[in-house]
Amino acid sequence: MAHAPLYSKVPTLADELDIVIPTIRNLDFLEMWRPFFEKYHLIVVQDGDHTRKVQVPAGFDYELYNRKDIERILGDKASCISFKDSACRCFGYAISKKKYIFTIDDDCFVAKNPQGEDIDALEQHIKNLLSPSTPHFFNTLYDPYTEGADFVRGYPFSLREGAPTAISHGLWLNIPDYDAPTQMVKPRERNVRYVNAVLTIPKGTLFPMCGMNLGFNRDLIGPAMYFGLMGDGQPIGRYDDMWAGWCCKVICDHLGLGVKTGLPYIWHSKASNPFVNLKKEYKGIFWQEDIIPFFQNVKLSQESKTVQECYLELSDKVRAGLGKLDPYFDKLATGMQDWIACWDMLNPPAKSHAAHGLPNGKA
Amino acid sequence: MAHAPLYSKVPTLADELDIVIPTIRNLDFLEMWRPFFEKYHLIVVQDGDHTRKVQVPAGFDYELYNRKDIERILGDKASCISFKDSACRCFGYAISKKKYIFTIDDDCFVAKNPQGEDIDALEQHIKNLLSPSTPHFFNTLYDPYTEGADFVRGYPFSLREGAPTAISHGLWLNIPDYDAPTQMVKPRERNVRYVNAVLTIPKGTLFPMCGMNLGFNRDLIGPAMYFGLMGDGQPIGRYDDMWAGWCCKVICDHLGLGVKTGLPYIWHSKASNPFVNLKKEYKGIFWQEDIIPFFQNVKLSQESKTVQECYLELSDKVRAGLGKLDPYFDKLATGMQDWIACWDMLNPPAKSHAAHGLPNGKA
Repeated sequence: MAHAPLYSKVPTLADELDIVIPTIRNLDFLEMWRPFFEKYHLIVVQDGDHTRKVQVPAGFDYELYNRKDIERILGDKASCISFKDSACRCFGYAISKKKYIFTIDDDCFVAKNPQGEDIDALEQHIKNLLSPSTPHFFNTLYDPYTEGADFVRGYPFSLREGAPTAISHGLWLNIPDYDAPTQMVKPRERNVRYVNAVLTIPKGTLFPMCGMNLGFNRDLIGPAMYFGLMGDGQPIGRYDDMWAGWCCKVICDHLGLGVKTGLPYIWHSKASNPFVNLKKEYKGIFWQEDIIPFFQNVKLSQESKTVQECYLELSDKVRAGLGKLDPYFDKLATGMQDWIACWDMLNPPAKSHAAHGLPNGKA
Repeated sequence: MAHAPLYSKVPTLADELDIVIPTIRNLDFLEMWRPFFEKYHLIVVQDGDHTRKVQVPAGFDYELYNRKDIERILGDKASCISFKDSACRCFGYAISKKKYIFTIDDDCFVAKNPQGEDIDALEQHIKNLLSPSTPHFFNTLYDPYTEGADFVRGYPFSLREGAPTAISHGLWLNIPDYDAPTQMVKPRERNVRYVNAVLTIPKGTLFPMCGMNLGFNRDLIGPAMYFGLMGDGQPIGRYDDMWAGWCCKVICDHLGLGVKTGLPYIWHSKASNPFVNLKKEYKGIFWQEDIIPFFQNVKLSQESKTVQECYLELSDKVRAGLGKLDPYFDKLATGMQDWIACWDMLNPPAKSHAAHGLPNGKA
């Protein structure tokens, strides 16, 4: 009934977690993260010009993939990985062999908590991912598995075991993750509010998932973490993480998995150009008015029991339900199917299907 | 798209808000609240022995009702108001003529924010109630109508007008609102985590509503704010606010109204006796395992367009759906119907039905 914290010391999971970073720059930002990231393996996905040499600070253990590598590895299915867009990061999720992924943008730095201490973002994501979620009933004191908290009066006892946590969505101090219109209207707005909470997004509720500071359990939800077709040759950008978030949430709800949001914060250093963003977002702003109701109403069949099965069913529904909006969604549905083919090629099913255990269970 | 704060100075609503306090004690706790409450009208509902004289500190404007008053005013319907249980407070909601209610327990004191300043709980409830809610899509930066916040990238623009806010659920520092088993297992636990956030509980999600520190819009949801049959002669206690919360949430979801939780905090001074509590809660702990699925699945008909109509439909469904659990629910369903009769007697329909306007609209 009452819960001791599930961990007194948070495990580092150094051998079970990869950090995925999409970039077109040198990775100088890693210097600030050195005390927190140095013990992890990095997967760097180099976007754009493959002849450019990306500099990674000395002492980090990493592998790097550029466009040529992606094409070599995925062959004719490489077209499902976006080019000239940070959506390319999802290649790193598929090529990883670890159980957990943390992905971060290269303009994100270490934030400070209200006590002025550096925030170990990864440690908080690990806490979030290793403790259960509560998608079936709202707890007013937020995450009941946190030290000093619990389920409040009136919380059904049968639901207190919670659900395995698939996703930990972290937030951003300084530059908030706004769309172009909001950026334009509020150019000086900064997020200075540190909210000391983690909470589960309830079952049946969609949320805007940002890929800037995101952790997830690859075994539980990896095959749904596809960042879509964005950037070069596509009519849309900046909806890569949103697409992944809508798909993941619907599948988590179907499979009884949890999604947490809140802590940890990172320091987002600079706003992207709102004019460039508006151009990228323009169609998405219209389309999402149809996409959201689609995802709010989509129902997956009981036959879909693995993430792959769910995702393939969803791709068919996307084609049928959103194809009429624009031919793009037909192409995206094909991309979703190609993505699963890539995932299964890189992660032979025997491994990736065996995942539905306890959140702490080994796959 | 971007929002200026809806108020630069928060209106006091001194002529539009009543504070409802159930008590068996003298109201010395009001001394600490004097700077915040003195401009409001209080409705004191005296529980238990009606011959006892409740002392209210000088300078407060109040009306007081004891059991004899309630019986005189409601006649044979008075049986729907609980006796020897703080659930009697809902009589105060019905007798009020104001648009807003704030209700607080007499063991709740002024809390301090992390800057060490006294928290004006009522001002925060008013902010919450006067700004819209976002029940249809989750905003990861919490209440987008707060100063310094907004809707994040990916939040559909068509949903940014929000929904009228019916309920503002505040929290508690120091003694958390735990059930008897958790109190027993964690006798020393105190809530010291100040979470600087207000958020909307998404549509379709139930929550445990605590009546200790609660604001609501009477015109929007008042007739559903019935605290049930508890205390003297009843098989159950400490589920009064929970019952109201489940009913209100289902009706808010049906009518497109919002429920917020989070700030403000009050200081909850002392834990009630866990042994006494266990006795009161005992049956509820079992029953809620059936009650929660009932409320999660209940669907109100499109014909129910007012809160009263919704509540009467719900009472029928309670009788049909929960009556088999225990004869108590049959009695409770009758209590729900009597409550609506009392409400309509005290609030002639012409007034109380005209409420579904903008959150700032006058009824």
